[in-house]
Amino acid sequence: MSQTIRVAITGAAGQIGYALLFRIASGAMFGPATRVHLSLLELEAALPALEGVRMELEDCAFPLLDGVSMASDPMKAFEGADWALLVGSVPRKAGMERNDLLRINGGIFTAQGKALAAVAKKTCRVLVVGNPCNTNALIAMANAKGSLPKENFYAMTMLDQNRAIAQLARKAGVPVSQVGRVAIWGNHSSTQYPNFYDAQIGGKPLPEVIRDEAWLQGEFLATIQQRGAAIIKARGASSAASAANAVVDTVRGLTTPTPAGAWVSAAVCSDGSYGIPEGLMFGFPLTSDGKTHTIVKGLTPNEFSKGRIAATLKELVEERDAVKDLMP
Amino acid sequence: MSQTIRVAITGAAGQIGYALLFRIASGAMFGPATRVHLSLLELEAALPALEGVRMELEDCAFPLLDGVSMASDPMKAFEGADWALLVGSVPRKAGMERNDLLRINGGIFTAQGKALAAVAKKTCRVLVVGNPCNTNALIAMANAKGSLPKENFYAMTMLDQNRAIAQLARKAGVPVSQVGRVAIWGNHSSTQYPNFYDAQIGGKPLPEVIRDEAWLQGEFLATIQQRGAAIIKARGASSAASAANAVVDTVRGLTTPTPAGAWVSAAVCSDGSYGIPEGLMFGFPLTSDGKTHTIVKGLTPNEFSKGRIAATLKELVEERDAVKDLMP
Repeated sequence: MSQTIRVAITGAAGQIGYALLFRIASGAMFGPATRVHLSLLELEAALPALEGVRMELEDCAFPLLDGVSMASDPMKAFEGADWALLVGSVPRKAGMERNDLLRINGGIFTAQGKALAAVAKKTCRVLVVGNPCNTNALIAMANAKGSLPKENFYAMTMLDQNRAIAQLARKAGVPVSQVGRVAIWGNHSSTQYPNFYDAQIGGKPLPEVIRDEAWLQGEFLATIQQRGAAIIKARGASSAASAANAVVDTVRGLTTPTPAGAWVSAAVCSDGSYGIPEGLMFGFPLTSDGKTHTIVKGLTPNEFSKGRIAATLKELVEERDAVKDLMP
Repeated sequence: MSQTIRVAITGAAGQIGYALLFRIASGAMFGPATRVHLSLLELEAALPALEGVRMELEDCAFPLLDGVSMASDPMKAFEGADWALLVGSVPRKAGMERNDLLRINGGIFTAQGKALAAVAKKTCRVLVVGNPCNTNALIAMANAKGSLPKENFYAMTMLDQNRAIAQLARKAGVPVSQVGRVAIWGNHSSTQYPNFYDAQIGGKPLPEVIRDEAWLQGEFLATIQQRGAAIIKARGASSAASAANAVVDTVRGLTTPTPAGAWVSAAVCSDGSYGIPEGLMFGFPLTSDGKTHTIVKGLTPNEFSKGRIAATLKELVEERDAVKDLMP
């Protein structure tokens, strides 16, 4: 047990951070034989609260936790990072236009991309969770160009995948482990497309098991696209623990070989697959050999899927165009 | 993977519950080969928020999570339970006397003890986390008498043990895994005694490694006893995630064989060991064979330890006397 993975986490004192840090430190992300160091980034004003979180991490006596450091400067927090989990972002506030939101966060992710390029390990992998996560990841990737390979950047759609699997399993009356090959296409936003046509239930094509296509195209898609709002309405708080769990699932999915019949969802830098413009951060079905990911090839989206993919692509192109000047 | 453990959790919509449920559902408590059903108890008024938590659990697509049920009646929530984690309790409010606190919670744990006796499995094990946890556990145990064996009741002191291990490891400059045989004696309150005299560091007696006895008897003890308040001061919220982690550690500690050189801390029904009156819920060092616990015998507390143990015993006897009429 000699290896220590250095994990940088932004927005560490927030609700997702609080749900995430203890799971990482317990070994849930990198397994029971890998030690971790947590390098936590927060705004200066949140460092006192973060110190309380650090004390609680200490109070767990986690055998795998090598240490915890804290900083308000990404040039310190990202130093030597093997993984950077970019959880923190500025949420949309009342009266804020979509372009304002893109540009405010664009500033943060420009600085973080430059800092990653300057001080992280050259093999560092970066998962962006803070929304709008696809375009935030695009900006970070562009600003780290020449130092970190573009293949090392991801934006999170795994929460959507897990939500889709759960709803499909419930509809089919099977355990979640029976549902495979579900993936989220496009943007992690309300235009996302949780493609069910290529999914399998118990190894069979899903459309042969769930024959209610109206439900799949209608209520199912709407439920997944609007699930975040439904949680906020019920809990009075956003979905922190399930988002944190999806971070764990994404990193595990990208660092362990993908089991047969399963896919990992994440937005990655498009290689032109399925007509998605090269260089755009777009959600695809992925598989992993434990070290690098591969976009699943050879699928043949039907007309319905093509329409949905075109809609989410249009949104992502607009987002990219709104922040073009932030990318060198 | 045929076994499903039914775990009832009270106060499930609270902060500790939110930090705990996802770790149980992920397999952290009962291991990767055991399925779980979570049966959640909350006040009627908190059921809508709890529904949001249930949705988030669903949204994790945990392969080990068989199901989640919710109730406001302990007679429903405890039905068929293999484990009951009694997390919910009424916190002390401004102007509330200690006896008021004991009696208000006494009412809750009387009802829960009776419900456990009526509907839980006869082998159900019960861990009380809600404070004052020793006396709450005593009341639940007394009210479940004749149905559940007294050996199946525990009150949580594992957070204190973990805190003590972390502080001792830091002082000695060693990893936490090097610190063994630390245990919390007595009440989970400011009178608790985290006994360091029997502890070992790297297999050696701790007093031979940490030679600063003034620090051990002074600052160390005070730090552990007052750690909860220090966390609240820093975070602006109580220590939910580290408490939840201690719940995981306690149940794992009681359901897996204790490694050599390690102890598990919990308050259990005294068998008269070390002069502690039989029947009192008192924190002891324990070991487990994976099925039942044993109080560690044959230790010889020195005068300092004897004084500390007497002080925390005095408090627990007073607590018991204040709620005597609640125990049949």
